Amino acid sequence: MRIAIVGSGQLAQMLALAGLPMGIEFSFIVDKPDADIRCIEGLGKIVHSHKATSPEALYQALGMPDCITVEKEQLDVSLLESLAQFCPVRPNIEAVRTCQNRQREKLLLESLGIPSSPHFFLASKGDAQAAADAVTYPVVLKSCEEGYDGKNQFIVHTAQELLSIVSQEDITPCIAEQWLNFDKEVSIVGARATDGSMSFYSLAENIHHKGILTRSIAPAKALSAQQSQTAENYLSQIMEKLDYVGVMAVECFLLGEELLVNELAPRVHNSGHWTQLGARTCQFENHIRAIAGLKLGSSENIGVAGMLNLIGTKQAPLELADKLSSVHWYRKSPRPGRKLGHINFVGKDWAEVNKRMDNYLGLVKALSESR
Amino acid sequence: MRIAIVGSGQLAQMLALAGLPMGIEFSFIVDKPDADIRCIEGLGKIVHSHKATSPEALYQALGMPDCITVEKEQLDVSLLESLAQFCPVRPNIEAVRTCQNRQREKLLLESLGIPSSPHFFLASKGDAQAAADAVTYPVVLKSCEEGYDGKNQFIVHTAQELLSIVSQEDITPCIAEQWLNFDKEVSIVGARATDGSMSFYSLAENIHHKGILTRSIAPAKALSAQQSQTAENYLSQIMEKLDYVGVMAVECFLLGEELLVNELAPRVHNSGHWTQLGARTCQFENHIRAIAGLKLGSSENIGVAGMLNLIGTKQAPLELADKLSSVHWYRKSPRPGRKLGHINFVGKDWAEVNKRMDNYLGLVKALSESR
Repeated sequence: MRIAIVGSGQLAQMLALAGLPMGIEFSFIVDKPDADIRCIEGLGKIVHSHKATSPEALYQALGMPDCITVEKEQLDVSLLESLAQFCPVRPNIEAVRTCQNRQREKLLLESLGIPSSPHFFLASKGDAQAAADAVTYPVVLKSCEEGYDGKNQFIVHTAQELLSIVSQEDITPCIAEQWLNFDKEVSIVGARATDGSMSFYSLAENIHHKGILTRSIAPAKALSAQQSQTAENYLSQIMEKLDYVGVMAVECFLLGEELLVNELAPRVHNSGHWTQLGARTCQFENHIRAIAGLKLGSSENIGVAGMLNLIGTKQAPLELADKLSSVHWYRKSPRPGRKLGHINFVGKDWAEVNKRMDNYLGLVKALSESR
Repeated sequence: MRIAIVGSGQLAQMLALAGLPMGIEFSFIVDKPDADIRCIEGLGKIVHSHKATSPEALYQALGMPDCITVEKEQLDVSLLESLAQFCPVRPNIEAVRTCQNRQREKLLLESLGIPSSPHFFLASKGDAQAAADAVTYPVVLKSCEEGYDGKNQFIVHTAQELLSIVSQEDITPCIAEQWLNFDKEVSIVGARATDGSMSFYSLAENIHHKGILTRSIAPAKALSAQQSQTAENYLSQIMEKLDYVGVMAVECFLLGEELLVNELAPRVHNSGHWTQLGARTCQFENHIRAIAGLKLGSSENIGVAGMLNLIGTKQAPLELADKLSSVHWYRKSPRPGRKLGHINFVGKDWAEVNKRMDNYLGLVKALSESR
């Protein structure tokens, strides 16, 4: 069996590393001419889609995969459409299309009655005044596409500020979402197989710094069973509705007892990396199993797990791994602010894991500066 | 960091797959011109040692690794000796040399007071009569080197038979070991780091068919805490004595309460494959951690685990993996009697895991025949 993945980053790398032990072969579709391919070198055929003379030539160059998947939602769906005539695309193209656009995401959530933050959609700069009048400040102004890790996002406090940003920035179509003073951000990762069966991981609590995820801990602390069940129900409804196959992640805001969906990701997700050490089957293996038409592996937790992103760290801090932690290093070129790896932790309880992560944050920082 | 592995089989493959997520790079030293390299293709530089014009040229071709290790003990140690001037060889050459020869192994065990089966050593064909007179029948006649999976081994019931085999077969130097009507074969896998710290996995019970390991289940059933501790002590003493770094396996016979060491393996071992699903850190990752000078990961069990070898199976039976099992497929060319992959299982108790393995054995056989 051969699987082709659109993308050449760490998610593509970890998907391949989860599938290679099963004897599955991989190909990578590099859809940006200048993409860094260091993550995936050696793991399979690497094909630059812009060099292919036809969809058929591309499919052939990929080694005629049995299935195509994605490591990201921000891509040209026409690439997927052109390949769908040769083999299944999983998750399906409509699911990717929905999740790559914040408006389509909101419409999907509304159609399912799943709550999310109040928002106003700006199709063009001409909608600025209507938006400025309608929203409750502060709002977060987010481009409908291409925005992630805090990029293309602005926190806006007044109508005047909103009008000024929309007129000056290349941001429309965009969405103005009411800024919620949420207690926590949590996420749920789950998988759906071709036979419709599903499996869900424990909810993770996510901590961000400057819009970038820095750490996740699962199971999230102080969540009620009811809230976990609600998150599972949301993800389950979304996957059913999209006839989804593969792993999907849903980020949610927690406001008191209320759970509001923030964002969907039609792929394996940074907040699910802890599953590599803290769950029976990691999210990467379950995505591969799902899209390969196989049965899902157990998503059961093995203790409390945490994940600390290595951001800007100059070199793999392998010496930091101890008995109950492991370092993952993506082989990307180091650059300040870039996610270059992560450390997974496992332990007995939330406080202990969180404390160890605090200690490590200091150690990683010291290592980054000394080298 | 770069690690070079002597060998191109599934153990080399699984070692690389355990190290790649840490950002470690691999090279493979193919020491037999006709070796099958399908297992390791894509996972790193592949260098045929017989093509190198000098040790230095070989070291350069390997990409100047930081450390060299082995996936097998049957190799020409002069290859390791020639490379040892450039970087550490782990486990050390003396450890490999000891374990590649049954006589040296026995001498090591004797020096440590570790019991093994009564035996008689035949340096040459001329020792046949002395051996025939000295031993208690039946005995197993084993070549001192190159014997594994039942190859180069003969069960001998009479003095006459012994004389005849020794005169006809190319078997000396060899060892005549008293045939023990043992209750079980168990094995222990452990790791020792560069700082001398050690970690041990639960003992596995091994079941063979025609001299080839077919399944392992860990923890082994009905072992006393005393017996497990004894096995740990033996492995600990052996690793200390050899100043060993890496993973080592010891196979033992269980006779009533007594534990007799059968064989040592200076490497990751088939009877430790269950650790990929059933332990916090698998034997492959712990070998990599040890030889890379890192701290060992926890070898703690996660439930009861089993491993079923896929022998002669024509195609990866990926569809057999269920919630609590996973298929490993080595990508080797199928051949009757060849180990082509394995399935790991995890469950609540020994009987349940064993029963599932019984069912799978039938399914795998049916699949092999239908394809």
